[in-house]
Amino acid sequence: MKIYKNPPANEWNEILKRPTMEVKQLDDIVRGVLDDIRANGDRAVARYTQKFDKAELETFQVTEAEIAAAEAALDEELKAAILMAKENIESFHRQQRTSVSIVETMPGVKCWRRSVGIEKVGLYVPGGTAPLFSSVLMLGIPAVIAGCREIVLCSPPNEQGELHPAIIYAADQVGVTKMFKIGGIQAIGAMAYGTESVQQVYKIFGPGNQYVTAAKQMVSRAGTAIDMPAGPSEVLVCADETADPTFVAADLLSQAEHGVDSQVVLVAFAEEFVQQVQNAMEVQLAALPRKEIARQALEHSVAIITDKPSEAIDLINAYAPEHLILSMKDVESIAEAVVNAGSVFLGNFTPESAGDYASGTNHTLPTNGFARAYSGVSVDSFVKKITFQQISEEGLKNLGPAVEAMAAAEQLQAHKAAVSIRLAKLKK
Amino acid sequence: MKIYKNPPANEWNEILKRPTMEVKQLDDIVRGVLDDIRANGDRAVARYTQKFDKAELETFQVTEAEIAAAEAALDEELKAAILMAKENIESFHRQQRTSVSIVETMPGVKCWRRSVGIEKVGLYVPGGTAPLFSSVLMLGIPAVIAGCREIVLCSPPNEQGELHPAIIYAADQVGVTKMFKIGGIQAIGAMAYGTESVQQVYKIFGPGNQYVTAAKQMVSRAGTAIDMPAGPSEVLVCADETADPTFVAADLLSQAEHGVDSQVVLVAFAEEFVQQVQNAMEVQLAALPRKEIARQALEHSVAIITDKPSEAIDLINAYAPEHLILSMKDVESIAEAVVNAGSVFLGNFTPESAGDYASGTNHTLPTNGFARAYSGVSVDSFVKKITFQQISEEGLKNLGPAVEAMAAAEQLQAHKAAVSIRLAKLKK
Repeated sequence: MKIYKNPPANEWNEILKRPTMEVKQLDDIVRGVLDDIRANGDRAVARYTQKFDKAELETFQVTEAEIAAAEAALDEELKAAILMAKENIESFHRQQRTSVSIVETMPGVKCWRRSVGIEKVGLYVPGGTAPLFSSVLMLGIPAVIAGCREIVLCSPPNEQGELHPAIIYAADQVGVTKMFKIGGIQAIGAMAYGTESVQQVYKIFGPGNQYVTAAKQMVSRAGTAIDMPAGPSEVLVCADETADPTFVAADLLSQAEHGVDSQVVLVAFAEEFVQQVQNAMEVQLAALPRKEIARQALEHSVAIITDKPSEAIDLINAYAPEHLILSMKDVESIAEAVVNAGSVFLGNFTPESAGDYASGTNHTLPTNGFARAYSGVSVDSFVKKITFQQISEEGLKNLGPAVEAMAAAEQLQAHKAAVSIRLAKLKK
Repeated sequence: MKIYKNPPANEWNEILKRPTMEVKQLDDIVRGVLDDIRANGDRAVARYTQKFDKAELETFQVTEAEIAAAEAALDEELKAAILMAKENIESFHRQQRTSVSIVETMPGVKCWRRSVGIEKVGLYVPGGTAPLFSSVLMLGIPAVIAGCREIVLCSPPNEQGELHPAIIYAADQVGVTKMFKIGGIQAIGAMAYGTESVQQVYKIFGPGNQYVTAAKQMVSRAGTAIDMPAGPSEVLVCADETADPTFVAADLLSQAEHGVDSQVVLVAFAEEFVQQVQNAMEVQLAALPRKEIARQALEHSVAIITDKPSEAIDLINAYAPEHLILSMKDVESIAEAVVNAGSVFLGNFTPESAGDYASGTNHTLPTNGFARAYSGVSVDSFVKKITFQQISEEGLKNLGPAVEAMAAAEQLQAHKAAVSIRLAKLKK
């Protein structure tokens, strides 16, 4: 962990710089696979599944029998935990639904907005060593609440051609309509273009490696919406003397274990505190199965010591962290001053992992500074808001002349005429 | 206008196909200009302004004196129309603000969401023959309501190095913080990267030609957010025997005059009605200054005759029009069944141009079928929604074990440990 003491503001950008990804080389590989999927459908999916996942599959959809087997195979304690998380996530996300309210902007001019679930959505859940069933909850639950009719899930199979039972169980509990054993670029292509077995969707969600990310960006340019651009996960912990250094160390490590490119930042107010956190990290690291990954991530991590809480807030907003943990006195007023962050955790007993899994908030959040302009996934991400208007004869008499004047000034005479022809009729 | 009578559903896609844009060749030009702006700032902006807009400018920002002159130059009737439109747009968009509500998902686990205006946004307003000051209202008003602190506007100057007074007046009334006489790719580059005189922004909004669109897509891949992908404007009018064919003709023409690539679709229930609309268009076309543009747009326009209202709804949802005009009986129940559209206009006295200018709804809408997954611009587009959570000691006791079980199952031991270390402390 590199330690900076009261660095001047003009050096913050350099100190808090994130790694840049080289994308050019990936693009050719990704485009090749996508084109192949588009042209050859399921046959191409099978070929890449064999090549990348080492699984021989003729059909990809998870069957009813597999769903029943997954439920039977899963540990009861884990099932109960998943159901508790599901309930909390549902109760937080249900609050995000919006009702229709009609605004009469002028007498006779009624305008309103209605949220409509995107009809067909695709959820991507990465595979690899750990089954990320929590992402199934975080994507599937808002999709169902939004009213999406077709909710397709793709996840890479293991070499035996299977998905982890926790992924299948979570998807089934949540209400995913179809699950497919397809991973990587081929999954994104199948959902974006459709194949014989996979339904084409209008928006694709979910995390993934750099190939998946590049594939999502590529299909998004061609018209399929995506949730947000993705980068390595990150946390910024801001801690004063009221924080427990062992808690702070645990929070930093829980970010560092994600991957060697994880971004870990500590903002503190005393050198001694930073030292205590570092000592605690050394102790805790030893017990971690993923200690090598965490250690590498910590090598490019940063601790900044500042004298003033106001400067800490400026640092937070300059960095725009995906996750922000505030372990400080007056934590509510500090939180009020945060304008750039994905999700904020207040107080000593609110670890990031609570929100990662089960407290109710969504864990699909903007990384890489995108929190300056993007929100995390929510029910909003799964709906479109359609506007409506209905104007009475009286309303058009009130509004029409302004429209005519503006259309004429923009030199769009047919726009003006569409009003004039109606006003003329009303004068008869 | 090509007329199709009861085409089978499997032919709809082909009949309603939109033009595809060739993007490859543009990319090299756009990338060259963007790289130059990023490297050379204002000097490069000045060079491209001279090259593309034929204007010699040393400074780009619109001055206080120019703002006063614009207000003095503008016709009183137009100013009044702009102010009326502003008031309606404000009252509709103000309704889109959201309040904070705290959800206690479990005893001691509090989660909430706060909308925060994106700090710095950029609005692009195209120039050309007509001054699109209505876009200034449609972008600037929600930005101000959202609470954006820096609202930068760029628009191309004429050969005398000036912006149209209506653009300056609208921007000033709305509360734009800085206006620049910069257009095209160079404007997108200046706002995305920042120059000596233009502030870097986090999200860029607004319509533009294919160069501007390509530039927006390119900077969005590198981290600047954009409003939505853009394509040619479009309308679908669905009209039964209760509609007035002269009104329908006027609405179709008001779309057709936008550009030769405008998409115009009529769905009707009788051949005779379509013929009446075509006759009315011929008559009205003659009076239009932009009749050549409209005529070319109409050449690739389509009329579909169907026997059943339910099939009309399916056609609408399959096409996902940017603008949808419903001139039919039972118009409210038809509108309820619409799931894919940008903005919907109900009844005979609700022309699209009302919403284009002044009724209150936003006119920045998803084209090209993107209405299946995207919403139009609203206050939502100018905010991020940050989630917060605060867990009490009691709350962590309730929630913690589930988090531990899930983290262990995902093989993320440090995530588990961040909870365990706190629970251990609470047991002491």
